[in-house]
Amino acid sequence: MNLILLFPEDFVAPDRVLLTGRRLRHVLEVHRAAVGESLCVGEAGGLIGSGRVLRLEESGLEMAVAFEQKPPPPLPVTLLLALPRPKVLKRVLLTVTSLGVKRIVLLNSVRVEKSYWKSPALFGEGLREPLILGLEQARDTVLPEVLLKPLFKPFVEDELPALSAGTICLVAHPPAQLSCPREVSGPVTLAVGPEGGFIPYEIGKLQEAGFVPRALGERILRVETAVVALLARLF
Amino acid sequence: MNLILLFPEDFVAPDRVLLTGRRLRHVLEVHRAAVGESLCVGEAGGLIGSGRVLRLEESGLEMAVAFEQKPPPPLPVTLLLALPRPKVLKRVLLTVTSLGVKRIVLLNSVRVEKSYWKSPALFGEGLREPLILGLEQARDTVLPEVLLKPLFKPFVEDELPALSAGTICLVAHPPAQLSCPREVSGPVTLAVGPEGGFIPYEIGKLQEAGFVPRALGERILRVETAVVALLARLF
Repeated sequence: MNLILLFPEDFVAPDRVLLTGRRLRHVLEVHRAAVGESLCVGEAGGLIGSGRVLRLEESGLEMAVAFEQKPPPPLPVTLLLALPRPKVLKRVLLTVTSLGVKRIVLLNSVRVEKSYWKSPALFGEGLREPLILGLEQARDTVLPEVLLKPLFKPFVEDELPALSAGTICLVAHPPAQLSCPREVSGPVTLAVGPEGGFIPYEIGKLQEAGFVPRALGERILRVETAVVALLARLF
Repeated sequence: MNLILLFPEDFVAPDRVLLTGRRLRHVLEVHRAAVGESLCVGEAGGLIGSGRVLRLEESGLEMAVAFEQKPPPPLPVTLLLALPRPKVLKRVLLTVTSLGVKRIVLLNSVRVEKSYWKSPALFGEGLREPLILGLEQARDTVLPEVLLKPLFKPFVEDELPALSAGTICLVAHPPAQLSCPREVSGPVTLAVGPEGGFIPYEIGKLQEAGFVPRALGERILRVETAVVALLARLF
């Protein structure tokens, strides 16, 4: 937790917050801050600043907060990700949030197990938690938007063209001839398939929607590794 | 498991292997291969090929194997990594092995907890397992070498200059002015600190040994994310 992300309900006055729960525990056990010390804080969706510890006890952490600095710039990318299994999903969401991705579309594919769409990792706190952890890791404040698209064909045919208009459209596809471009200028829509890859029909539909297949070399990588490697190359 | 890695003890004849244990279970439960089907196999340290299933039962998997293809080329990099906590170490070793790193030096730092050096993840099967999983993931056969350097100063002063001679020497350091170079030509020695970073004394010693501090932008990334992002940029 390199930044403590603050939400409206944390404020007891315009410049004062009271924290309990996970964030209190972390400050007690990991930061071990003393009264008078300052911690990095950020207002969800807003600025970064510092919080001076006024009180730190088992019952709560009280800080006087002031905000002055913009969060780091986002990555100009929309990530289309074939829904991974819940444990991997949590790790990928945390990781791509820490890298600055602000729009994530979780997509169906023939190789996505149907049960994954019922996972608690897709809803409410289960979905929010890795996003918040990712922001806290990277000292960012702006939560990404996560869209769920459990129907591949209608999404790719009817919604994707508008969603990806004006962007460089790439689909990670290990057998592709061309390799993923480096340091692109301009926004990107990047599609990443499931373990085992998109099936040829799905690659074909993405190509019809303007996506160009690109590879990352002959090694087969885990989804969570491939996504980071692709984003690091592109930006 | 995109490749089944074979060791000398698996061979019951020059062109025939018998597998039990983890690899048998994986083929039974995930691949669900039938007799006559071919699976991708590789000889540890050698060539890649195919294994035709002769028998697949609870008691063992027997295959007729033939090897013809070279494994993917390694990354020309030595990775110096401040020893992470054991759970993270396992993930990082798997990941960097899948990316083709062939020499990993686990290094001490003031911010490395002493107890980490006693973890079973550093010895014998505990160390070998994530390396093998990384090779199986990426369809590679060549195990990386892992060196343990629990004394920072003697290693950096006495051993590192020879180890890194003739390479581009970089240390990942978030406050650095210059950003990590892209698509370098020639071999690299890349040092990556612990969570919280190398302390200024350690950065100074690495600079004396010829290492240039380079950053990856203002976001603070987890070690496991930073390592992938750095390698993807460099190569």
